[in-house]
Amino acid sequence: MAHDIRIVTEAELRQVVALDLTVVDIVAQAFAALGQGSVVMPPILSMELAEANGEVDVKTAYIPGFDSFAIKVSPGFFDNPKLGLPSLNGLMILFSAKTGLVEAVFLDNGYLTDMRTAAAGAVAARHLAPQRVQVAGVLGTGVQARLQMQAAHLVRPFERLLVWGRDATKAEACAADLAADLSVDARAVADAEEVVAESQLVVTTTPARTPVIRAEWLHPRLHITAMGADQAGKNEIDPKALAACDLYVCDSVRQCEVSGELEAALAHRLWSKPTPPELGQIINGTAEGRSGEEAVTICDLTGTGAQDTAIASHVRTILGAAGTTIRA
Amino acid sequence: MAHDIRIVTEAELRQVVALDLTVVDIVAQAFAALGQGSVVMPPILSMELAEANGEVDVKTAYIPGFDSFAIKVSPGFFDNPKLGLPSLNGLMILFSAKTGLVEAVFLDNGYLTDMRTAAAGAVAARHLAPQRVQVAGVLGTGVQARLQMQAAHLVRPFERLLVWGRDATKAEACAADLAADLSVDARAVADAEEVVAESQLVVTTTPARTPVIRAEWLHPRLHITAMGADQAGKNEIDPKALAACDLYVCDSVRQCEVSGELEAALAHRLWSKPTPPELGQIINGTAEGRSGEEAVTICDLTGTGAQDTAIASHVRTILGAAGTTIRA
Repeated sequence: MAHDIRIVTEAELRQVVALDLTVVDIVAQAFAALGQGSVVMPPILSMELAEANGEVDVKTAYIPGFDSFAIKVSPGFFDNPKLGLPSLNGLMILFSAKTGLVEAVFLDNGYLTDMRTAAAGAVAARHLAPQRVQVAGVLGTGVQARLQMQAAHLVRPFERLLVWGRDATKAEACAADLAADLSVDARAVADAEEVVAESQLVVTTTPARTPVIRAEWLHPRLHITAMGADQAGKNEIDPKALAACDLYVCDSVRQCEVSGELEAALAHRLWSKPTPPELGQIINGTAEGRSGEEAVTICDLTGTGAQDTAIASHVRTILGAAGTTIRA
Repeated sequence: MAHDIRIVTEAELRQVVALDLTVVDIVAQAFAALGQGSVVMPPILSMELAEANGEVDVKTAYIPGFDSFAIKVSPGFFDNPKLGLPSLNGLMILFSAKTGLVEAVFLDNGYLTDMRTAAAGAVAARHLAPQRVQVAGVLGTGVQARLQMQAAHLVRPFERLLVWGRDATKAEACAADLAADLSVDARAVADAEEVVAESQLVVTTTPARTPVIRAEWLHPRLHITAMGADQAGKNEIDPKALAACDLYVCDSVRQCEVSGELEAALAHRLWSKPTPPELGQIINGTAEGRSGEEAVTICDLTGTGAQDTAIASHVRTILGAAGTTIRA
């Protein structure tokens, strides 16, 4: 009965998996399947550990045609930095979709989540951003700020980049890193409004609970991807902007209603349009996408189990001999 | 940031963990905490993979005072026997309750679940069965039939044992195994009714969807633990028996309402008493237990994430050097 299980650490995964168009394409496949309605994706299991200022989320999804499915566990313990530890950790477990046997354990500390989240940003930009993006902007200065701009550059090779964050020093560092990574003219700016005004593609990567983008800032030829909100109460974009833009798109309507930008818009009764389309429907052509270069579009990414299944399945195929094999 | 994670296989776990009173006591602690209402236990995440005749459940719980919490993934793929593989598999992952860091991965293929499920049967028998049990009976002939009787014998050292199963050959084998394991007079019988009639303690361990115990069979000085039903639609005991007995107890009311014996009783409008007590409340003395030797009691076990956290935490403390250490 015993079978081989591959155990792969974050360091080993970093040598195998990079943010590239292959990863973007596999994540796009996950969204396309979601858009077809063929994915089985249960609601996120979420547990709060109030005493430790911690929480843990479990996501999964079965994508027909994929040989495996992932279960991802994401703990977030927000006092960890006081202990010199990162807040976010976790792992993905890959199971055979035929037998349920464990195939691999990716002790990634969130690295694969970072990859698939950034890849989703690229998928959103590919299908929703204006064709010509000269200037891209990012709100937030963390890991995802960097990765989202790298991902966006894969599909919209912009020339200039603006970074805004509450901490100017971090914004400068983020801009410097991205200038070096992407060989673009990247600089930090003092106002989020300036980022939005000058950009054709903006990604918000903050944990904001009050919006960092105001509806009045929307302008023709603009796409915004909001990837920061992943829990009830988080809100990056003025809820009025969702109705004011030409097209608002969810990664998963069910998730955005409870943990994305749509949550706040519904709570403030600022969303009266029909159910928004999902990114996968735009990919599949079963829902209308951007109407033209001048349109204003918003994509709301809360993070789906389908992306986890997609990236973990992909990683399994490119692992080679990486990791440790355990017979169990 | 890298830290050590212990990876332990089923074979290694079998050498470390056995079904004994220590395991029973740690699982009793989990129930006591549940009974205090201090446990954080989210609803079970469940995903069906219809194409593969498979399903996967994820359970977890945080028990205050425990340094760790477990997340358990239990796939059930019911065509596996055709491939020479067991239907049930899975693993438990142990996380620090202080930092969320992964501490251990137990590739147990369900072994620890078997242990904690049997231990729950012993906890139920300890707190609900008549003090004197000469004859115990089991319905079902699988792994849990054996383990439940071994567990029951730890707390109620009965002298005779009756086994009933739909397959007489398997019932004979189960009785022979238990006779050897427990040094008791164990035999298979042709009728489930005979098992109930002669026993003071009965455990049902079947995947039945129509009851295997009829309400008319209840008799004074009887305790029944039903541990087979763990999903909507499963039902081992005539729903009328729940109201007819002197005391019906749930492991978790919330779970029993949707996946235990209570589900059928509610569906048939055969439960009109107040909310039943939980096993932990009986342990804590905050709910009334058995009223006397002659009473008829039923305990409904659906399986709780608290048990998983309890056994996985316990295993971590007794591991010694077992397993493989991975720095991740």
